[in-house]
Amino acid sequence: MNVTVLAGGVGAARFLEGLAQAVPQEDITVISNTGDDEDFFGLRVSPDIDIVIYTLAGAVDEKKGWGLRDETFNALEALRRFGYETWFNLGDQDMATHAHRTMLLHEGHTLADVTRSIAEAFGLRLRILPVSDHRIRTMVQTEAGELPFQEYFVKRRTEDEVHAVRFDGIDEAWPAAGVLEAILLADAVIVAPSNPIVSIGPILAVRDVRDALRNTPARVIGVSPIIGGRTVKGPADRMMASLGMTPSAAGVAAAYADFLEVLVIDEEDAALAPAVESHGVRAVVAQTIMRTAADKRALAERVLREVQ
Amino acid sequence: MNVTVLAGGVGAARFLEGLAQAVPQEDITVISNTGDDEDFFGLRVSPDIDIVIYTLAGAVDEKKGWGLRDETFNALEALRRFGYETWFNLGDQDMATHAHRTMLLHEGHTLADVTRSIAEAFGLRLRILPVSDHRIRTMVQTEAGELPFQEYFVKRRTEDEVHAVRFDGIDEAWPAAGVLEAILLADAVIVAPSNPIVSIGPILAVRDVRDALRNTPARVIGVSPIIGGRTVKGPADRMMASLGMTPSAAGVAAAYADFLEVLVIDEEDAALAPAVESHGVRAVVAQTIMRTAADKRALAERVLREVQ
Repeated sequence: MNVTVLAGGVGAARFLEGLAQAVPQEDITVISNTGDDEDFFGLRVSPDIDIVIYTLAGAVDEKKGWGLRDETFNALEALRRFGYETWFNLGDQDMATHAHRTMLLHEGHTLADVTRSIAEAFGLRLRILPVSDHRIRTMVQTEAGELPFQEYFVKRRTEDEVHAVRFDGIDEAWPAAGVLEAILLADAVIVAPSNPIVSIGPILAVRDVRDALRNTPARVIGVSPIIGGRTVKGPADRMMASLGMTPSAAGVAAAYADFLEVLVIDEEDAALAPAVESHGVRAVVAQTIMRTAADKRALAERVLREVQ
Repeated sequence: MNVTVLAGGVGAARFLEGLAQAVPQEDITVISNTGDDEDFFGLRVSPDIDIVIYTLAGAVDEKKGWGLRDETFNALEALRRFGYETWFNLGDQDMATHAHRTMLLHEGHTLADVTRSIAEAFGLRLRILPVSDHRIRTMVQTEAGELPFQEYFVKRRTEDEVHAVRFDGIDEAWPAAGVLEAILLADAVIVAPSNPIVSIGPILAVRDVRDALRNTPARVIGVSPIIGGRTVKGPADRMMASLGMTPSAAGVAAAYADFLEVLVIDEEDAALAPAVESHGVRAVVAQTIMRTAADKRALAERVLREVQ
């Protein structure tokens, strides 16, 4: 069974941990958001790709939820001497990943090639595709002005109310090689429990991707990132509300209604099943909070049961 | 008194430590070799500039003789995962310097501008000029083929016999702004105890620099890096011998005879004074081995006494 997962951020990485227990890695393709990518100190950072790689390689710092275990921050600390802002926490080992990525990009390799190289170096066997090899930058409009995503997310800790989001460069962004095929030829396409606006949104905004999702013969199944009206982590709930969406599993169903067949919602939201189904999306109620490895695997298996 | 020092490597950095005790930093201009510069992991490394900055800032690892104190190598270690050779010991804090340099160069700043920025960040008040803003690469011809300098020096530990040295890019290399003025308008020009071939050689090979040294009204005084036929550190003695030069204070005098007025030679080499003077260079005998801060200062003061 070939499974394709649309992914962005920590929730997606956790879901993929479970999926990789339930399905051989070779059968998994991840289509990753790249709208969070940013350059720091001349290094290209792809946070959503790296969190998947680090998590699946068992290298992630689980306490912090990001970055590498046993990480140090000595280069970043030393950069302060030169007057740089150092709010983006780049660890020393993490910088090696970004230096490798940056070198290969400068040599003319695509981000997809680079991502494969990094995933292989971390011993992974699943396929991780950036949604596009072209640069996409998620820009967040707030009262403080338009902010690049990382500035909104890390520097300002998502404290600004979001009035609008746009994806800079999206008009020139073609899907990376393999992206459309991964959607059209999969047995199942899973939309991970990620922020619908800034994690899944950029993926859906790349030309032909949304059409492929509407037209794929594969079953398209989502997992709601909103539980009881709130996100486990991150600003998706507040962002949905300020953008006029309903911050609930029903709002997630509405956002994906044109291509989603099934939405897995949390037990806590069982009462929302009719609201979800009012959007033409079948609701499946499950335990979706992923605390343990068993939780993650169980959720993945529950999702996969909808494919057969 | 304005003092200009031609410098490259650890010997020069130590000499400058003494000079900075004897003369206000504001009165010192260093013209640095850049032939050792190399790109590692997309970062521009300028070892001869950095050793001067780190040493004068009191930040150098004195035990190792290079790099920063309390340095870690976690990024370098992590780069091995991607298959890179890691023989060039780039520390995490050191990488911050190189990232800063690389960013500014990419933005279009000259190496001279970048060097000023780094020196200021380390609290220095002396002026450090790269001999040229253009890229010069010292290439060392050996039995193993032609090697970039760092490969000869660090990776292969200077073990190859050197048949020839050339400075790639030298024909396009103009002196950086201020270099010729620093030679022509100084009260004294000092050639530091550095390797005449690969540390001072590239400086002398930049167009107009050697002519400026011949024509400056300043007194031009050298300190021999060869003591008793050997170098304190590095391959200068073997390199001079294999290139047909005499590896002695007299050989150093011969190499600089067209512009040098005075050569300070070690007490151990007092008997070589006539050989030095046979090249038309006045020999001054002094204690030139720099073990302590007092040694360094005494040597600087002895050199400066030749200026008055």
